[in-house]
Amino acid sequence: MKMLKSAVLGATGNVGQIFVQLLDNHPWFQISAVAASERSVGQMYPEASRWRQPVPIPECVTGLEVLPIEPHRIGDVDVVFSALPSEVAGKAEEKFAEAGYVVVTNASAHRMDPDVPLLNPEINCDHVPLIEEQRRRRKWDGAIVANPNCSTTILTLPLAPIYGEFGIERVMVSSMQAISGAGYPGVPSLDIIDNVIPFIRNEEQKFQNETLKIFGTPNKAADFKISASCYRVPLWMDICNLFS
Amino acid sequence: MKMLKSAVLGATGNVGQIFVQLLDNHPWFQISAVAASERSVGQMYPEASRWRQPVPIPECVTGLEVLPIEPHRIGDVDVVFSALPSEVAGKAEEKFAEAGYVVVTNASAHRMDPDVPLLNPEINCDHVPLIEEQRRRRKWDGAIVANPNCSTTILTLPLAPIYGEFGIERVMVSSMQAISGAGYPGVPSLDIIDNVIPFIRNEEQKFQNETLKIFGTPNKAADFKISASCYRVPLWMDICNLFS
Amino acid sequence: MKMLKSAVLGATGNVGQIFVQLLDNHPWFQISAVAASERSVGQMYPEASRWRQPVPIPECVTGLEVLPIEPHRIGDVDVVFSALPSEVAGKAEEKFAEAGYVVVTNASAHRMDPDVPLLNPEINCDHVPLIEEQRRRRKWDGAIVANPNCSTTILTLPLAPIYGEFGIERVMVSSMQAISGAGYPGVPSLDIIDNVIPFIRNEEQKFQNETLKIFGTPNKAADFKISASCYRVPLWMDICNLFS
Amino acid sequence: MKMLKSAVLGATGNVGQIFVQLLDNHPWFQISAVAASERSVGQMYPEASRWRQPVPIPECVTGLEVLPIEPHRIGDVDVVFSALPSEVAGKAEEKFAEAGYVVVTNASAHRMDPDVPLLNPEINCDHVPLIEEQRRRRKWDGAIVANPNCSTTILTLPLAPIYGEFGIERVMVSSMQAISGAGYPGVPSLDIIDNVIPFIRNEEQKFQNETLKIFGTPNKAADFKISASCYRVPLWMDICNLFS
Repeated sequence: MKMLKSAVLGATGNVGQIFVQLLDNHPWFQISAVAASERSVGQMYPEASRWRQPVPIPECVTGLEVLPIEPHRIGDVDVVFSALPSEVAGKAEEKFAEAGYVVVTNASAHRMDPDVPLLNPEINCDHVPLIEEQRRRRKWDGAIVANPNCSTTILTLPLAPIYGEFGIERVMVSSMQAISGAGYPGVPSLDIIDNVIPFIRNEEQKFQNETLKIFGTPNKAADFKISASCYRVPLWMDICNLFS
Repeated sequence: MKMLKSAVLGATGNVGQIFVQLLDNHPWFQISAVAASERSVGQMYPEASRWRQPVPIPECVTGLEVLPIEPHRIGDVDVVFSALPSEVAGKAEEKFAEAGYVVVTNASAHRMDPDVPLLNPEINCDHVPLIEEQRRRRKWDGAIVANPNCSTTILTLPLAPIYGEFGIERVMVSSMQAISGAGYPGVPSLDIIDNVIPFIRNEEQKFQNETLKIFGTPNKAADFKISASCYRVPLWMDICNLFS
Repeated sequence: MKMLKSAVLGATGNVGQIFVQLLDNHPWFQISAVAASERSVGQMYPEASRWRQPVPIPECVTGLEVLPIEPHRIGDVDVVFSALPSEVAGKAEEKFAEAGYVVVTNASAHRMDPDVPLLNPEINCDHVPLIEEQRRRRKWDGAIVANPNCSTTILTLPLAPIYGEFGIERVMVSSMQAISGAGYPGVPSLDIIDNVIPFIRNEEQKFQNETLKIFGTPNKAADFKISASCYRVPLWMDICNLFS
Repeated sequence: MKMLKSAVLGATGNVGQIFVQLLDNHPWFQISAVAASERSVGQMYPEASRWRQPVPIPECVTGLEVLPIEPHRIGDVDVVFSALPSEVAGKAEEKFAEAGYVVVTNASAHRMDPDVPLLNPEINCDHVPLIEEQRRRRKWDGAIVANPNCSTTILTLPLAPIYGEFGIERVMVSSMQAISGAGYPGVPSLDIIDNVIPFIRNEEQKFQNETLKIFGTPNKAADFKISASCYRVPLWMDICNLFS
């Protein structure tokens, strides 16, 4: 199989660095371009990223120059991964989709758009055809596909066989989430060392809404009851990421 | 009001040290005696305890010699606080009650005995008369009174007004508990640093059973449904203890 | 002895909160006024400070309104404690001294001024007369007196008897410093959890220069060799502060 | 090049697990046998080790049965790696060397024996010929070769070029060491969370003696002055191990 060429948007941030780490030595993808905000453009990736992961910076990106987040600068790639912060992701990802790119995004900006598939592939790959509706409605050649929030991804996997076999009436879930999910600089250490913080902004709403969207049909959310409580705990990274 | 003289059993352990810390400068109680296992008997308390709390050792105990856990050695005290480990607490506390002492215990050994009041005083002080039944049945002059598990204590307080006003059908609760609750040496640091441990031995059962006993009548447990999940998190001490 | 009335500048920040905590129930001082930056002025102290210490907010400050950092607003106080960040401390403290206040500052801005006493009182209270020189030279009625950096304070105490008895040729010191010293928001948790950071900006220079100033005469620094290495470690607070 | 077959003694402990992790996918070595104390013998390695590393258990050991620490049970291997605790390592390693095996040990038991090479290969591979003296003196066909203590290994590398170019008069070193070095269960979490422990038993002596042995000739230790201070800090693992 031919390797697919990919670009990472927001590649210098903390989420972007995790994308780079996971794409290194990936059997399907190679990284052809990294893009980030004005502050980093023109620098080499190792300098611009100030690499903060507990593994060495992958060789595949050490020779890449950071490009601006502009479709015409990204060149010939098969897929665009977006690790952009939510406040800029919305507009930027639309421009790439309009320019014909397929954007797979970790940002929350488009997750709840009715014509954007929110995919946890083991569960709802039958939502993929929403892309056709998206292209028709928005008149573009590319597309936006979103993955869920980290906590939603983890919750929905064990719920799936239960939902399939028995249905679900009500979900009550508590999550204990590592600091890496808050990005960088993220959580001040004075707030979290020797502490648990019983609040993560917007997390509980995302957790609830995204779970119902994933378990729904392409056009209608599931309607069981779900109540989430999200806690920040003093860990560096959710174990699940370590083994990805 | 005259100060009440108290003894602390198991005073050198981690729970015993917290008792000593909380009784220091207490408006009702003073510490007249400290007792611990053979290993510590005859040593002065500061040496024997190898004090490990984040506040200095209280002056009230620096001049006390550690006594054996024997009723005839404790002398004239008004109340005996027990911080004994569960595996020795059962027998030892009975001997003190038989010898005429009122034992207030933090150990789990007698909590679920039908004739031992398990008190969270803001909620079920109407269980105190169980003492009379206990004395009658066991033919002793003293008594054993237990406080609940730490997590139960905290859970039952906010549940109480809800239970009183509306009743309760079902409780689902997750607890995130500090390492101090595991005693010393307790949790190995390799297990808990940068980690959350989704298991605390016997904790979930205690949590469930004790909650139902507290909300029951003196002779019959409450019968709502309750499901607890207990997690160990990398904190030193539950905040609630710090401010007690 | 009559209680001395004090004001705390920068009272809402992390260092200011420690000042408030240490002045609570102090045998000599009471807090009459709290001042902070524009953002907090006019709010009550509990709201403005968003209290972050592991002990409850002292009652003595719950009824105080936050004042601006202006001498004419502070009123009749005997001493002004400054917990201002260094970048604003320089000018602000001079204005208070000019207006006749005695300012005792924890900020680094004036520590190395030749006419400002840098006091670790057990060691160099013979530097106090520098105040006269300061008043003469600067033509003001108040004064500025500084305490050293936290690491310098701790180092100089055990060095003092050695210096007095034998003299010192050379000091090599490594410090492991808690996150509270970096203020709030301070160190990002992603940088420090499960890590040690071998760099604290400007800390090694302060450590070296201040130590030599303290061990010198009022007008001339000591001249032994000193080399410091400062490390940030994942602790909340230096133990020394806890017991102050 | 033909792969060398290796056995790991003490393979189920924390140090043994690191050996297994580092030998997995190694270009020169494969693991043919794992041995441990009576408690584990006969169990499969995954059960016996209760794997505690932050990476998945390597496939190369999932099918191995734990053998006793006996030379006649280890079979045909080219090299024996010893991760035994010091108190049993001394005798056990001698039995393997006597039986003809080359033992490369991380234990401290034989490090300071005059006829055992203590190797940091980039620095003192000229100590290897000590093996001949060892075999002659002890009349065995195998050999024991030791690696230094973790802190010594790290210190001696940057000292080596300085020593070679300029010589060394005196070394003063402070180490901040992760909890993994203390084995399992190792450091109680109550002692180390939110704390630094300024003492590691025997560590400073090893640090000093081993450094001088490495920089000496095969038969005589170097004689510069060295003073070490060792601190335990609340980290899981020294970064250096992560990248090995």
